[in-house]
Amino acid sequence: MGSLITLTTDFGLKDSYVGTMKGVILGINPQATIVDLCHEIEPQNVRQAAFVLYTAYRYFPRGTIHVVVVDPGVGSERRAIALRTPMATFVAPDNGVLSYVVADEEVERVVSLTNPQYWLAEVSSTFHGRDIFAPLAAHLSLGVPLEELGEALAEIVTFSVPQPEIGEDGTLRGHIIHVDRFGNLITDVKQQAARLSQETIIEVRGHRIVGLRRTYAEAAKGEILALIGSSGHLEIAMRGGSAMRTLGMKVGDEVKIRNPALH
Amino acid sequence: MGSLITLTTDFGLKDSYVGTMKGVILGINPQATIVDLCHEIEPQNVRQAAFVLYTAYRYFPRGTIHVVVVDPGVGSERRAIALRTPMATFVAPDNGVLSYVVADEEVERVVSLTNPQYWLAEVSSTFHGRDIFAPLAAHLSLGVPLEELGEALAEIVTFSVPQPEIGEDGTLRGHIIHVDRFGNLITDVKQQAARLSQETIIEVRGHRIVGLRRTYAEAAKGEILALIGSSGHLEIAMRGGSAMRTLGMKVGDEVKIRNPALH
Amino acid sequence: MGSLITLTTDFGLKDSYVGTMKGVILGINPQATIVDLCHEIEPQNVRQAAFVLYTAYRYFPRGTIHVVVVDPGVGSERRAIALRTPMATFVAPDNGVLSYVVADEEVERVVSLTNPQYWLAEVSSTFHGRDIFAPLAAHLSLGVPLEELGEALAEIVTFSVPQPEIGEDGTLRGHIIHVDRFGNLITDVKQQAARLSQETIIEVRGHRIVGLRRTYAEAAKGEILALIGSSGHLEIAMRGGSAMRTLGMKVGDEVKIRNPALH
Repeated sequence: MGSLITLTTDFGLKDSYVGTMKGVILGINPQATIVDLCHEIEPQNVRQAAFVLYTAYRYFPRGTIHVVVVDPGVGSERRAIALRTPMATFVAPDNGVLSYVVADEEVERVVSLTNPQYWLAEVSSTFHGRDIFAPLAAHLSLGVPLEELGEALAEIVTFSVPQPEIGEDGTLRGHIIHVDRFGNLITDVKQQAARLSQETIIEVRGHRIVGLRRTYAEAAKGEILALIGSSGHLEIAMRGGSAMRTLGMKVGDEVKIRNPALH
Repeated sequence: MGSLITLTTDFGLKDSYVGTMKGVILGINPQATIVDLCHEIEPQNVRQAAFVLYTAYRYFPRGTIHVVVVDPGVGSERRAIALRTPMATFVAPDNGVLSYVVADEEVERVVSLTNPQYWLAEVSSTFHGRDIFAPLAAHLSLGVPLEELGEALAEIVTFSVPQPEIGEDGTLRGHIIHVDRFGNLITDVKQQAARLSQETIIEVRGHRIVGLRRTYAEAAKGEILALIGSSGHLEIAMRGGSAMRTLGMKVGDEVKIRNPALH
Repeated sequence: MGSLITLTTDFGLKDSYVGTMKGVILGINPQATIVDLCHEIEPQNVRQAAFVLYTAYRYFPRGTIHVVVVDPGVGSERRAIALRTPMATFVAPDNGVLSYVVADEEVERVVSLTNPQYWLAEVSSTFHGRDIFAPLAAHLSLGVPLEELGEALAEIVTFSVPQPEIGEDGTLRGHIIHVDRFGNLITDVKQQAARLSQETIIEVRGHRIVGLRRTYAEAAKGEILALIGSSGHLEIAMRGGSAMRTLGMKVGDEVKIRNPALH
């Protein structure tokens, strides 16, 4: 157990950055299993990486090591951290990329990655994914205890996980927090919190959607629909097309939700 | 044996969908080897997925489990199936995506995936790749017999595998069935069936090609050529460029083939 | 040892070409670990592949087998080769794609891949990645000696690794040799050779940069900066943006470097 390592980066796939990290890991632990979570995070988009990690980490077995390298401050004074929860260990720059994780999980321990013993011998100032995060994850997967990696931290950098706001008239104002490859608009509205039902009225860009569908296939071709997506969040979608393109919406845009029964 | 699992989806690589499926698989069978066949199938393009799978599955070892999740009907009444041939097991929605496979292979058994014992405990209505197909493939790779997964089916959904048509004048009308990353136009014309030779005349978009080349390198730079591609199909290519862009052709477009010797 | 295989190709990820190669490898050596170095090399861009390989191979463990399939001459008279250095074995078409490797490494042995015993039984004339390179790498990973694969070669095809030129006035003229996913412009100027310092003046497209930064984060948002990148080369970058897009530069373009102290 503990030899499964996931990688989430903004390195893309047109260079050798990701492959190089894997070479470093397998040089230290040839038995490691490495899974790519995502490498197409927009350059330096820490919030997107945080969300993508959040949708996935629960589905990995206990003891998985999740490495996140979206790191605009690489080489600066920003800290690098390893954080342990009952289920997993997360290795990342201390820039907020674990905000969703710490909002939902019990944190057993966090350390600052200051012990150079588990880094590569030569450390560049621009590619800590290769020189610090990859070797460290490999050593963790071999059983090196978190405590060895550096001193304990009491606090880490986080951003406020997006939440819908309740207006004076009881209207909920949610936000698009992610657009997936299908153009589905994923919001910060969770089913339970928002008491979504078949009467719920959802307004996006002048479009008015009444009630939730259970599946994409329940809507007519070309119809804009709302449903609870696979991450448990309210999602605006288009049957057989891209809601993003059709509605012209992007991350940060607003979605209004009203539950008439509650008024 | 049997611990090799391939994945073909339209999930793309900018979200965590594919990585999450791998987490589920490795949580059930940590020894599974997972290979990405393709995740850039156009959203919901079942025929493209069917063709991409067809070009690859023969090259995998006996006992490989091929999972295909291109699934516009996810969560609806469409069935999910597992299909066994002498060489491999295929796990997919019952939407035609195995049409090429069943056209070429002996089907030993097909079952409908109705036994929830091998799904995740909680099943969403929009991401069966994660909640049904991935855990099921993992259990299959551990040796669970197909028969356990659900009741046998006598028939599955298929589409007619594209075939060239023979015109009254003996001209063969083939069709572009795939465009690859190089812009090569792959047709439904197979060498033997069409008796292609050095005298064959091929017409595409007003362009007239005489005879087949053996390799791309035999043509002059910028020349449009025809050859038998690596999947055994007639392919229109451009030396050092994209035939798709230069000819402005796309999937479904027609190619005319004449064998003068036969007239 | 020796069961780690990396793949570098221009096959992209929208077809099954890469997955098929993996199926062939795992059919021969089910224990092989396969790492994708890069599949987004521009079609037939041998020099780009050579550079991407060069930035990565040092970070893999001893005995790794690096397979490169960027192969405009596939099926023609161009040779295919396997080349052994003290650290690694490289398998590739003989088209210059190993130029950086042979410039930096001691070559122990090169052979021409002429022994069909280690190929697939049926060899296409357009997909040697599947039919020759993949099975060969798999056999090598099982311990087949290089000597078995074909006769020794005294020479292989190489291109001159790009080098900056020294002008009459002592100005160094470097060249952009790679643009990464962040739009960073990587040059052929190495720190030691060019004696780069805080006084160095770098001119790119009318932009004048004085001195080197240590990290991207040291620059102001939107600033064009110069630093030594993770491959040891001088790199022109933009803090929080793309130097490529902002400066409108591409591979082959010139960068002028002056060290006033030396004049």
